Amino acid sequence: MTFSDVDHQMMSVAINLAKQGIYTTAPNPNVGCVIVRGESIVGKGAHLKAGEPHAEVHALRQAVDLSEGATAYVTLEPCSHYGRTPPCAEALIKAKVSRVVCAMQDPNPQVAGRGIAMLREAGIRVDVGLLEADAHALNPGFIKRMKTGMPYVQLKLAASLDGKTALANGDSKWITSPQARQDVQAFRAKSGAILSTAKTVLDDNASLNVRWSDFPQSLAQTYAESNVRQPVRVILNRSNRLEATLQNGEINLIDSSGDILLVNAPSKETNLSQLTRHTCITQTQAPLNQEQQFDLPRLLKQLADEHNINHIWVEAGATLATSFIEQGLVDELIVYLAPKLMGTDGRGLTQIAGLTSMKDTIDLNITDLRMVGNDIRLTAKIVTK
Amino acid sequence: MTFSDVDHQMMSVAINLAKQGIYTTAPNPNVGCVIVRGESIVGKGAHLKAGEPHAEVHALRQAVDLSEGATAYVTLEPCSHYGRTPPCAEALIKAKVSRVVCAMQDPNPQVAGRGIAMLREAGIRVDVGLLEADAHALNPGFIKRMKTGMPYVQLKLAASLDGKTALANGDSKWITSPQARQDVQAFRAKSGAILSTAKTVLDDNASLNVRWSDFPQSLAQTYAESNVRQPVRVILNRSNRLEATLQNGEINLIDSSGDILLVNAPSKETNLSQLTRHTCITQTQAPLNQEQQFDLPRLLKQLADEHNINHIWVEAGATLATSFIEQGLVDELIVYLAPKLMGTDGRGLTQIAGLTSMKDTIDLNITDLRMVGNDIRLTAKIVTK
Repeated sequence: MTFSDVDHQMMSVAINLAKQGIYTTAPNPNVGCVIVRGESIVGKGAHLKAGEPHAEVHALRQAVDLSEGATAYVTLEPCSHYGRTPPCAEALIKAKVSRVVCAMQDPNPQVAGRGIAMLREAGIRVDVGLLEADAHALNPGFIKRMKTGMPYVQLKLAASLDGKTALANGDSKWITSPQARQDVQAFRAKSGAILSTAKTVLDDNASLNVRWSDFPQSLAQTYAESNVRQPVRVILNRSNRLEATLQNGEINLIDSSGDILLVNAPSKETNLSQLTRHTCITQTQAPLNQEQQFDLPRLLKQLADEHNINHIWVEAGATLATSFIEQGLVDELIVYLAPKLMGTDGRGLTQIAGLTSMKDTIDLNITDLRMVGNDIRLTAKIVTK
Repeated sequence: MTFSDVDHQMMSVAINLAKQGIYTTAPNPNVGCVIVRGESIVGKGAHLKAGEPHAEVHALRQAVDLSEGATAYVTLEPCSHYGRTPPCAEALIKAKVSRVVCAMQDPNPQVAGRGIAMLREAGIRVDVGLLEADAHALNPGFIKRMKTGMPYVQLKLAASLDGKTALANGDSKWITSPQARQDVQAFRAKSGAILSTAKTVLDDNASLNVRWSDFPQSLAQTYAESNVRQPVRVILNRSNRLEATLQNGEINLIDSSGDILLVNAPSKETNLSQLTRHTCITQTQAPLNQEQQFDLPRLLKQLADEHNINHIWVEAGATLATSFIEQGLVDELIVYLAPKLMGTDGRGLTQIAGLTSMKDTIDLNITDLRMVGNDIRLTAKIVTK
């Protein structure tokens, strides 16, 4: 299939429309749609929130009867099932479009191709695969969960140029710039869950939520405060270090908005009986591995299956980071490096140790590099050896 | 003074011409010159090598009698003294140009303004200060030495993302990519001297010269091999660790081209009597400080005064790097970060230690950030607190 220049332009518009939903659609995917007659756009739509209309419906509503004989550009294969909304494939058929261009098939193997088949059966020409990589990048979490049952994991690391996360005495406020900390807010807001540990909650009195007041200004201008979801905060509480502090109540984690999921060791529960004013704490148990640590692959699967989490932002200390890296569970590393030297006796970025050959180093493939304020931010994938 | 668009364009051409000499002019500055009549360039020149004609002379030769009434754009104030070549101010007067535009004055306070005065006395209009920052960037070393008597110091550092320069067992081949190592060749070639230590020479069997075969291809296509100077290799040999190995002769340092300056402790000399085939080793002594280390500020002054070194590339281990940083002797850090994690037990980037407050960290101001092959390269200045 060769696509025309107009096809490319229109799908680009659809992809940009899809981005309107990046802070709001979870656990649904970001989808954009454009209805085109000749070379004119007659309808535009984006999916904005689970339960609300899909992108195609918004676009068709705008196009009204101009959709007859038009081409619909959609960033994802139109759905074919009755969910909270009727199937979009049906809506496109009813609207009498003559052609549908999809950037990619539905990633869910259970339904992939069904929407396309419905359209074709109705005599509509369907072309698939235009700007597929860009469409894929809109929904790494949704796509990974649909294909594998596991969420997409982004691990945040932050250190000085000499790889330190704190001085020897623990002082670490602040290594990175205010701009980098704002940038973190945007990553948190895009995720379905923020995963951290009781240790981080206690050591840093971390709230781990999305703070509108700290949101990067450029985003705060684009997205209304009311549209920013609070991802669920998943806190690993294996040794139940949190109970005492939670009971006292004076802790940023529960003084800030956003649901909390406490992950306890098997058959353990955190006693929250003294805690009355915060109702959005739920509890779960997760299995341990042979080292008596949480079995992270099973925990991730549980978060995907039971909580519909597509995309997890891991923000904790060196111990959890090391576990994620060493167990090969990281899809993407987001590393902030502050332009500082903190000294050889500072605390290390990871707890990886014992390498005896340079061929055993953990190698990364940097996919993005930029300055954020005075800090360096790099995005990387771990190279599988 | 307001400069016209043509002025800006022509000075840009002169600045680009000056860059032709970046690997060859030391200890002389890089200078470019353009002779312009109306809006047409009638002569172009660059200074390429000490002892050879200055930029103005090349440009005037090309312009021949078209220089009468023309404007000369020069990146540096024309010289006013008889050196190995006659003064350029005189040549411009003889050529009857009617206007001279200089990007900057001569940085040497002894002669600054004299060339300009000569020209003005001859009735030529002289305008100074066009694209001065760009002209300054052509010759950081020359300018610093002329103004302060000290060379410009670039310190090279290379580490993994977690700030390690070797594994615990010392293995470090290779942390950075071949492209980063080629990039280092270009930095070495631009410098007047490469400063290192006996320890680095012995540990890495380092040749520390400019290897044409390892030169970045883009540069190898622009600069002829014969034009690439070998900077003098200044090797700190305080404890005379080098003597035994030098006598044996089988060492890359002396098996590679380029002069060597051995820096011995006061009143010490390295015995080279067995070594017959390498005649370009000279020796000197440098004073020690109270810690019985080389007094680096005095050593740098000595290299500037006695060896006309404008620009030093420091490439050694963590000990020397730490001394340079802690003593405030670094003008520019060039840091390569390889996309690897090497572990907490690896060797650190510096020997800085004992910081107890985040306000005591050594802070950098990053002026350039880019990928070199798979590695990150950043250029930074140390922030003076």
